[in-house]
Amino acid sequence: MTHWEDFYNTHLPPADFEDNRSLLKEFCERHNKLQNRIVLVTSGGTTVPLEHNTVRFVDNFSAGTRGSASAEYFLDHDYAVIFMHRHKSLEPFTRHFTGQQFFDMLDIADNSQSSTIAIKPDSVDVFAPVLAKYKIARETQMILYVNFTSVVDYMWLLRAACECLAAFEERAVLYLAAAVSDFYIPEDMMHRPSPVALLKSKLKFHFVRSQNFSPTHKMQSGDGAPTISLQLVPKMLAPLASLWVPHAFVVSFKLETDENLLIVKARDSLNKYKHKLVIANVLQTRKHRVVFVTPTDSYELHLSREQALQGLEIEEPIVADVVQKHGDFISSAEQRQ
Amino acid sequence: MTHWEDFYNTHLPPADFEDNRSLLKEFCERHNKLQNRIVLVTSGGTTVPLEHNTVRFVDNFSAGTRGSASAEYFLDHDYAVIFMHRHKSLEPFTRHFTGQQFFDMLDIADNSQSSTIAIKPDSVDVFAPVLAKYKIARETQMILYVNFTSVVDYMWLLRAACECLAAFEERAVLYLAAAVSDFYIPEDMMHRPSPVALLKSKLKFHFVRSQNFSPTHKMQSGDGAPTISLQLVPKMLAPLASLWVPHAFVVSFKLETDENLLIVKARDSLNKYKHKLVIANVLQTRKHRVVFVTPTDSYELHLSREQALQGLEIEEPIVADVVQKHGDFISSAEQRQ
Repeated sequence: MTHWEDFYNTHLPPADFEDNRSLLKEFCERHNKLQNRIVLVTSGGTTVPLEHNTVRFVDNFSAGTRGSASAEYFLDHDYAVIFMHRHKSLEPFTRHFTGQQFFDMLDIADNSQSSTIAIKPDSVDVFAPVLAKYKIARETQMILYVNFTSVVDYMWLLRAACECLAAFEERAVLYLAAAVSDFYIPEDMMHRPSPVALLKSKLKFHFVRSQNFSPTHKMQSGDGAPTISLQLVPKMLAPLASLWVPHAFVVSFKLETDENLLIVKARDSLNKYKHKLVIANVLQTRKHRVVFVTPTDSYELHLSREQALQGLEIEEPIVADVVQKHGDFISSAEQRQ
Repeated sequence: MTHWEDFYNTHLPPADFEDNRSLLKEFCERHNKLQNRIVLVTSGGTTVPLEHNTVRFVDNFSAGTRGSASAEYFLDHDYAVIFMHRHKSLEPFTRHFTGQQFFDMLDIADNSQSSTIAIKPDSVDVFAPVLAKYKIARETQMILYVNFTSVVDYMWLLRAACECLAAFEERAVLYLAAAVSDFYIPEDMMHRPSPVALLKSKLKFHFVRSQNFSPTHKMQSGDGAPTISLQLVPKMLAPLASLWVPHAFVVSFKLETDENLLIVKARDSLNKYKHKLVIANVLQTRKHRVVFVTPTDSYELHLSREQALQGLEIEEPIVADVVQKHGDFISSAEQRQ
């Protein structure tokens, strides 16, 4: 696995990086002065480009449901929210309606002078509370949106956000709900022309991943086909929890397809990175059941059938529980001082 | 390369296939009775799942700009439009506004009795014409939306649409703007647990693609790492143009990164599939320049700087040209009868 420092040394920041860093800095400084609690919510999947011009990439599927819903509930608890999300993934508030749903809610009225367009009366009841919350969050500047696409973008933004969050010490929550790729293709392994163009012209083609980086010629298979190394992405949770925001309340997520591995793997992660909480879930049941795993405890949180039918989202009790734990964490830190 | 019939024999249709087929059938029968012209617009990229539970996939990048804009212009020319698009890619009309743009255009007014929500007066001028066109297209049932995600979904929908379009004979246009993957991973080559989970546990891992399908054991590299075959997707343009809709006006798109290959490759495609038109473009300049390549001719179509600044979209002249060619094509078919 690449060491995390090497990763930043060998990958350039995205083009909009300095703009985002300024936004993060301004947002954090303002809320730190106000002594607000703050949460970084990461959301959506990352891409791994397969070629320089980035027509093709490997994607981790994530619509961003967990992150975008959670961001809304953190706002309800008066947290300042940095919503760091995959470009085009779901966003707080707007997530409730698709483009066509918006259009279908609208009526046009023409009079002699001009047109007016209004939300149909029967949609106002559903729409007004969502719109009102959105407007308040924007007007009070309690939410900042920053976005990423590739795993490299994500890594740069994550570190920049941590640099700004460090000053909050215990008042910061990191809520790392994004689905980050495990691997990437190093810059010098990306082909021009694209690997897929090569695919068409050769009998055989290998994507090769080795634990230790090996030079290309060693990767060649016997038949002379070109090869590409897939490298494991460094686990940023390690420097994040120990160096970047050592005082913050760090929450990671673990998505498994095997129920039996859930708690074991969550516990492994806590032992390795020494952070505060893993929220573990199984792919198929993640919308109504999660397991909270702390260094000392583990327990399930789930929606009943009635709650789900009433439209309750599991992110509401998840966030309430995290906020409760975060409050306790701040109190005990204050008592130690 | 897999033969196209084998592809359908070895890949199940998507879960919503029969629903979509019924919709296509109803839509086509209605418009065929009305003697309307019809266009199938395909739009957006396809995915290739890397594992059964589909957390990770390879994606072809395409926002769906070309297809969604073109669909609007075909409606302007009184075509019935089947808009067959990648789930969550851009759609006609709604493509002009993101979720936050919608929210920011709206004002809430509260009086003692109830709330009303209306589009701000300064946004009405921009929004009203788009909304009005959307409403007309829906009310007159001139547009049908069907969507796909994976390349397998796409293949099934494409054939089903063609089966319904055949009855239109010369009155049908196929406008194949979707970015379809060149390769796929056969069902029996997808791993459980996921290949990426295996990645983590093994020193080496190969994605292998062979022109001729080979059994797994032959694909194993010397060190015992698991392998996955990537197969070339059959070129559906072959059965489509010669068997499924032999009388239709078929337009394909060619996206290249190398300007010099543009016309040569477009001409190759026309020679091979015997369809009517290739619209060729280079990735970097595709928003303001395309090349029309017919069996006898090739010419450029581009936006001037002023046109681009005025907000003209290149899809407007592209569609106007296709509609013109399609009209000529119908006339000459009628003269032959």
